[in-house]
Amino acid sequence: MASTPKAADVPQGYFAEDVSDEVVLARMAESMDPRLRHVMTAVVKHLHALVKEVEPTQQEWEQAISFLTETGHMCNEWRQEFILLSDILGVSMLVDAINNRKPSGATETTVLGPFHVSGAPRYPNGANICLDGKGEPLLVTGRVTNTDGQPIANALLDVWQANDEGFYDVQQKGVQPDMNLRGLFTTDADGRFWFRSVKPRFYAIPDDGPVGQLLGQLGRHPYRPAHIHFIVGADGYEPITTHLFTPDCPYLTSDAVFGVKETLIADFRPVDDPERATELGFTNPFVTVNWDFALARR
Amino acid sequence: MASTPKAADVPQGYFAEDVSDEVVLARMAESMDPRLRHVMTAVVKHLHALVKEVEPTQQEWEQAISFLTETGHMCNEWRQEFILLSDILGVSMLVDAINNRKPSGATETTVLGPFHVSGAPRYPNGANICLDGKGEPLLVTGRVTNTDGQPIANALLDVWQANDEGFYDVQQKGVQPDMNLRGLFTTDADGRFWFRSVKPRFYAIPDDGPVGQLLGQLGRHPYRPAHIHFIVGADGYEPITTHLFTPDCPYLTSDAVFGVKETLIADFRPVDDPERATELGFTNPFVTVNWDFALARR
Repeated sequence: MASTPKAADVPQGYFAEDVSDEVVLARMAESMDPRLRHVMTAVVKHLHALVKEVEPTQQEWEQAISFLTETGHMCNEWRQEFILLSDILGVSMLVDAINNRKPSGATETTVLGPFHVSGAPRYPNGANICLDGKGEPLLVTGRVTNTDGQPIANALLDVWQANDEGFYDVQQKGVQPDMNLRGLFTTDADGRFWFRSVKPRFYAIPDDGPVGQLLGQLGRHPYRPAHIHFIVGADGYEPITTHLFTPDCPYLTSDAVFGVKETLIADFRPVDDPERATELGFTNPFVTVNWDFALARR
Repeated sequence: MASTPKAADVPQGYFAEDVSDEVVLARMAESMDPRLRHVMTAVVKHLHALVKEVEPTQQEWEQAISFLTETGHMCNEWRQEFILLSDILGVSMLVDAINNRKPSGATETTVLGPFHVSGAPRYPNGANICLDGKGEPLLVTGRVTNTDGQPIANALLDVWQANDEGFYDVQQKGVQPDMNLRGLFTTDADGRFWFRSVKPRFYAIPDDGPVGQLLGQLGRHPYRPAHIHFIVGADGYEPITTHLFTPDCPYLTSDAVFGVKETLIADFRPVDDPERATELGFTNPFVTVNWDFALARR
């Protein structure tokens, strides 16, 4: 797709259907930024090829203009409808994949999502990030290692998740305590971390806008399977942004934003152990998950 | 590009870079509208191919999201920045071309543009559509025929144009009279029409938004060469939306929206004839253009 059109092939720069992309590309100045030239060449070629393949009616073109306009008008400080569009078309995951091609052995990445908050509280291992006591108790344990399985001490884990009703604290200001189900943890000398929480629930992405309407027209639901978010980093290592998924969620194979990777489905186990529950300050039964993150050297 | 992906090829619908488009397409419901399925299949395939070709960094993806968001926010009742984007990328002209493949002999079409107004005044042939007397006087004459050159009586011509400073009446409310340089004319029994006006001037498309900024980054100017707009229709014939271009405009070969077709460049001639000028109520010298429109049968 990337061959440069020859301006000489396009008589006087006048438009014609069969050379439509070449006419447009021939107008780009020699002096322009080379990266933007590369990007816009690909954009124009794919856009014209798409239009030629689909042959939209004038009315369908107007519908496309309206869809983009409504998507733009839906965006504000709290809502990013174009990111949502990128998410439901798999583009966000593709960009993530392209930018996170890791050596074999590193934990796979997935999308950051819109609910990360900077400045979550720093906790000692063992702390409970569930501040309102609501939900099914969960103990998360694990290690951060390098790709050879050697433990990494002082690795930082930034954790956030939805509650057992499928909402993040920022979506329920005044209902959930601020900074509910968020925290920063540091691994010990053996690379270990552990904290207490609740089992997360699936939730719907915002579907009251044009992107939600498109999802409906595609015959798709708006749900994301239950997961816990992590950003894990350590000095000298590539940080990773990823999720852990529960294995029993009905939406696991149909995540509205395609965020699931098979290697990120964890073994969340029910535990019936009244003594251990009491030690943890949990009601019995409860749930445990053990998970090791592997980081690649920079 | 249009082969249907097989859901069976995509294990459990989980995302992977090499099958990214297939994973997304496999989610579309069997029951969805077949035309939307065809369109979205092409959209997803081209979008993923584009991302794979360009390999945007996370920051470049964010820039693309910001560009689309700003373009959306620029749109209001008076300004359509996404149409402008479609225009400068040659997409509007391509959609026009696809929807107006006419039999050989019919006048070629070009974009409608944003300045058409319904309900322009209906005038007898010979009327002057320039209501403020400003500009270089112009006499427009011609015929409407079928593709065999036979005259069409009672054909309707909807005419509009910018003034000699490059502005339409709707852009200069209170400066130009309402409905200045607009009018509806009907051909006589010989298919003839004629009216008086002024020679139009080139103008810049609105370039104070994100699309204007992109034009600048591409090393392109925002100008459209001088032209007069026409919609010409008659009972039993396909209507055409087109322009006549002046042959001496410096932007003729670099129209910001690619609207020029070589066959639409007319012969605007200077005339030095004091007697004829007086007959027309013109100052001498003045300009004439003679142009025949050919319509194809429905």
